[in-house]
Amino acid sequence: MPQSDADIGAEMHGWARDLFPICRSLTGPGVRETLAYIKKILPDLQIHSVPTGTKAFDWTVPDEWTIRDAYIADEAGNRVVDFRKSNLHVLGYSEPVDRVLDLTELQKHLYSLPEQADAIPYITSYYKRRWGFCLSENQRKALKPGRYRAVIDSDLKPGVMNYAELLLPGDSEKEVLLSTYVCHPSMANNELSGPVVVTALARALAARKNRKRSYRIVFAPETLGSIVYISKNLDALKKHVIAGFVVSCAGDDGNYSFVATPSGQTLTDRLARNVLKHSVGNFKEYSFLVRGSDERQYCSPLVNLPVVLMMRSSYLEYPEYHTSLDDLTLVTPSGLAGSYNVLSRCIDALEESKIYIPVFPCEPQLGKRGLYPDLSTRDVFSKVEHLMNVLAYADGKRDLLGIAETIGLDISACAQIADKLTAEGLLREV
Amino acid sequence: MPQSDADIGAEMHGWARDLFPICRSLTGPGVRETLAYIKKILPDLQIHSVPTGTKAFDWTVPDEWTIRDAYIADEAGNRVVDFRKSNLHVLGYSEPVDRVLDLTELQKHLYSLPEQADAIPYITSYYKRRWGFCLSENQRKALKPGRYRAVIDSDLKPGVMNYAELLLPGDSEKEVLLSTYVCHPSMANNELSGPVVVTALARALAARKNRKRSYRIVFAPETLGSIVYISKNLDALKKHVIAGFVVSCAGDDGNYSFVATPSGQTLTDRLARNVLKHSVGNFKEYSFLVRGSDERQYCSPLVNLPVVLMMRSSYLEYPEYHTSLDDLTLVTPSGLAGSYNVLSRCIDALEESKIYIPVFPCEPQLGKRGLYPDLSTRDVFSKVEHLMNVLAYADGKRDLLGIAETIGLDISACAQIADKLTAEGLLREV
Amino acid sequence: MPQSDADIGAEMHGWARDLFPICRSLTGPGVRETLAYIKKILPDLQIHSVPTGTKAFDWTVPDEWTIRDAYIADEAGNRVVDFRKSNLHVLGYSEPVDRVLDLTELQKHLYSLPEQADAIPYITSYYKRRWGFCLSENQRKALKPGRYRAVIDSDLKPGVMNYAELLLPGDSEKEVLLSTYVCHPSMANNELSGPVVVTALARALAARKNRKRSYRIVFAPETLGSIVYISKNLDALKKHVIAGFVVSCAGDDGNYSFVATPSGQTLTDRLARNVLKHSVGNFKEYSFLVRGSDERQYCSPLVNLPVVLMMRSSYLEYPEYHTSLDDLTLVTPSGLAGSYNVLSRCIDALEESKIYIPVFPCEPQLGKRGLYPDLSTRDVFSKVEHLMNVLAYADGKRDLLGIAETIGLDISACAQIADKLTAEGLLREV
Repeated sequence: MPQSDADIGAEMHGWARDLFPICRSLTGPGVRETLAYIKKILPDLQIHSVPTGTKAFDWTVPDEWTIRDAYIADEAGNRVVDFRKSNLHVLGYSEPVDRVLDLTELQKHLYSLPEQADAIPYITSYYKRRWGFCLSENQRKALKPGRYRAVIDSDLKPGVMNYAELLLPGDSEKEVLLSTYVCHPSMANNELSGPVVVTALARALAARKNRKRSYRIVFAPETLGSIVYISKNLDALKKHVIAGFVVSCAGDDGNYSFVATPSGQTLTDRLARNVLKHSVGNFKEYSFLVRGSDERQYCSPLVNLPVVLMMRSSYLEYPEYHTSLDDLTLVTPSGLAGSYNVLSRCIDALEESKIYIPVFPCEPQLGKRGLYPDLSTRDVFSKVEHLMNVLAYADGKRDLLGIAETIGLDISACAQIADKLTAEGLLREV
Repeated sequence: MPQSDADIGAEMHGWARDLFPICRSLTGPGVRETLAYIKKILPDLQIHSVPTGTKAFDWTVPDEWTIRDAYIADEAGNRVVDFRKSNLHVLGYSEPVDRVLDLTELQKHLYSLPEQADAIPYITSYYKRRWGFCLSENQRKALKPGRYRAVIDSDLKPGVMNYAELLLPGDSEKEVLLSTYVCHPSMANNELSGPVVVTALARALAARKNRKRSYRIVFAPETLGSIVYISKNLDALKKHVIAGFVVSCAGDDGNYSFVATPSGQTLTDRLARNVLKHSVGNFKEYSFLVRGSDERQYCSPLVNLPVVLMMRSSYLEYPEYHTSLDDLTLVTPSGLAGSYNVLSRCIDALEESKIYIPVFPCEPQLGKRGLYPDLSTRDVFSKVEHLMNVLAYADGKRDLLGIAETIGLDISACAQIADKLTAEGLLREV
Repeated sequence: MPQSDADIGAEMHGWARDLFPICRSLTGPGVRETLAYIKKILPDLQIHSVPTGTKAFDWTVPDEWTIRDAYIADEAGNRVVDFRKSNLHVLGYSEPVDRVLDLTELQKHLYSLPEQADAIPYITSYYKRRWGFCLSENQRKALKPGRYRAVIDSDLKPGVMNYAELLLPGDSEKEVLLSTYVCHPSMANNELSGPVVVTALARALAARKNRKRSYRIVFAPETLGSIVYISKNLDALKKHVIAGFVVSCAGDDGNYSFVATPSGQTLTDRLARNVLKHSVGNFKEYSFLVRGSDERQYCSPLVNLPVVLMMRSSYLEYPEYHTSLDDLTLVTPSGLAGSYNVLSRCIDALEESKIYIPVFPCEPQLGKRGLYPDLSTRDVFSKVEHLMNVLAYADGKRDLLGIAETIGLDISACAQIADKLTAEGLLREV
């Protein structure tokens, strides 16, 4: 992946800026516009439409929602709350309304956060018909008693839900899953960071000449989108996926973190730990008890895929989460580039996760191959420590990740050593 | 179990007061009188008699001991040590004697505790013929040089050993064992607390309309009684018992504790930990290395049942243990009620220890069932956390106790959630 | 093993003094002289010769090296560096040379340790032809500019490599391996301590009347010697060896230590831990990551024997390592005797490592056999705790070592108890 961190970070941040204004929701034109934008970068992306009423396990695809405009106007006709200023102002999935009503009555349809007086909260009501406006506590307090006109110019009618996938075949049918979601309106970290990081990773993977693994890359509305996706692909997912990553909250400069699978012991868990430990150092591992995104579906008992949620600051830890404060100052080029790099390392490691066994019993004679000092000074072992350790622990059972864990080394460094030893005829793949 | 803590505690304490004066031993009329009292409360109790000379594994039932009176009189004929004041005064299984002897000679037959000068120790000599008196160190020091008459009016002759069992069949042949012992003379915590708590539990179980498990409840003399019981029921015990509790030292207001099985990992160990953690909080777990009661037999290698010893203050920790100071001031209604409640919760959990699996892949749509908030505010997950967690970890392999351990919840709370989810068609039992 | 610690320590130290002056190397007369000395103590020792050019896995036996004399003389003809003063002065495997050259040119052939100015380092160049001298930093600094004559009177030509083995058959084909190495010139702890401790153990084992295990005892040059040995005996080693010890750095009075196998969980690991814990207390366990001697070969993936490295101060921790300071003041009779005792205990434990199961279900009646107090005082259990614990945990699955680990007792104490219980008909071997 040849781009510099600064370049790839800037490019992803540019995509996020382009996508930021679009009003996405569970369904509707905002999702389609977003997927069309990504398809320009990933031409092989397949965009799917699922009609309203489609069953997916316990769920049914609801009516499609279209939002054109929304505002609250005072008696003088001034828009005191205006969808055109922030699409968070309209409660997601609001039914259409055009009513004049007293402030007292209007209050029942208003949502704000007393503890964050400047922030417009992000709230939806997908499965119960409502209408409403979200606004900052300060805006709300400034509303004077009187009569207001509340207008929401929306549709809720049969249509489709959209999602997209990109399948990149590799030498092996074994797949790595990348999944992110495209249903949030104008918020940056949660969630444009996931889509732009996954888009950049997908573009790089598509450009690889030799892919040892196959890749399955999913952009879908959160929860229902992934449930629909799983319902249509359950057998293939269960058969092929050997590791997977949901990417979310991946664009700030905070600490790296991941949510482990229920067992915490899958290949993906071990890989996330190894890569974060060696490439980042300080990171946070969360139990599946605090799961929050589509890993909830991928790791549910009857689906049971080895999928972790990769983040920088967890949604549990940054106060801007699900408010208008989650904007493009919180998400930075370096934040995005960091997530991109960590996930690239995970992917590289999965490409390399082989199992090796020595060719010879006992240690080989490294000296005659120039791999060992020819003078036996006291510090000789420390000079070849990692190479000797890979040889000592490549027992035909541990994979490279297991060796990396045991000898305390980055898996990519282990892979380089194993490649060298294989080329020298000292290790072979089992 | 409808009684209040105060009521059930008072009732058990009343039984203990009735039973306290009886002079129990390994065999003899005291055991029979005690079992007859319990049978008034548990009419289906079966009382068994095993003749002297019966073999049980490595053991043989010894002669039956009957004690009618015992005393040491001084030269003036005053009873200076008197069985009628405390039945602990006679060494258990003393052979009959009526001798006049010097204090020096008498001393060889006296037992006291220099470190607890007020306490009469509890000592027996079941398998070696002896006679003797136990008395407080202070009493002993007050004995003046001179001649004394030592009288023990006892019999040691072929008879029977008694024990009792109550079998309560349930829907399943799988059994829960409750076992306690009835061979200690006038001491309250060790051991009337076990018999009265087990009696109260047995009465409640007998009154249950639907028992999912079967129950096997044993009242027997310690060690030999349980060995005889096991020798007569070994196949059934090994076939049916899925969990078991020896109850002892269960009546004081001290900290709760239990002695784990040798592996420490059986269903009963895990259950005791979960119930004590969530219903009591502060408790002590002892290794099987400090076993002390009939769990020694039930957990011996060739018997190998999942039986723990449930206590409040362990016999290792209260100084009144095996002395006349272990009386009905140490054992309290609230102490007994506490043990009764902990064991009731364990039993309730065993009644519910099923394995569930979801009906649908992915998370079900809880909102349409009124089980999930219909407005997606930021704190939505915390409102349904436990319910979502039970769904997420009910994987068809973990039992409810395993789920409770993983999600950090009381097993009874988990069982209520699982019942609700099953009723909603979202979980099913495997 | 009847000798006192002082006697056996003094005897081993005497052997070390005899062997110290010999100039050993990978091949050559020094190894043969050393093995001949050991054969006087172990008459059944078989000494093997492997010709130059012999293949062993990835290795080839090199030319044999003979060193007769070596020195650097100044212009006046004074030997300023003299092999006759210390055989460490000649770089191991130096090719012959007789040249007069300037100090500047000579410096390229000199090796010293700036950080240990008094020590002559031990350095070899087995597989690359070189000539050179090792000297102390102080000696080196004292060399004045001028011309020097460098003479090494050595041969490097086809010959043999030698090693020796002693096979002691026992009741079982299962073998215990003891291995040490005989290729170091005049250094005491690393390595005469290993050869003399193994010689003493071998002599004691050869004298045993009843050996339950068979013993395979190897004296070979480090690395290549053990590789050749393994190449000639791989099938037998893999079939028979149940435990093994490489002995090195075993003669000082420092802390005991061992290097665990890669898994750290073999019988040998568990045994080393138990014996060191109970007979020594304070010891250090190293991971296989810091392996250093022939356990590198015995534990390599395709050999995979349960072999640990037993030491007192690890080569990692004593500064005299691989220098002329590692002499017979560092190695002491008591240091050697300590290692001898620890290894003797390990061997005794391996002779006893059986699996027992009780004869009777439940606890047996110990009292009738005089194994249990006949009076039931409160402290009765503590008097028979260990015996009761062996009975309670001898479940037909744990071996004696497993029981020892569980009950926190020395394995030899456990073995004594198990013998007594077996003699009483209460335990039997499975």
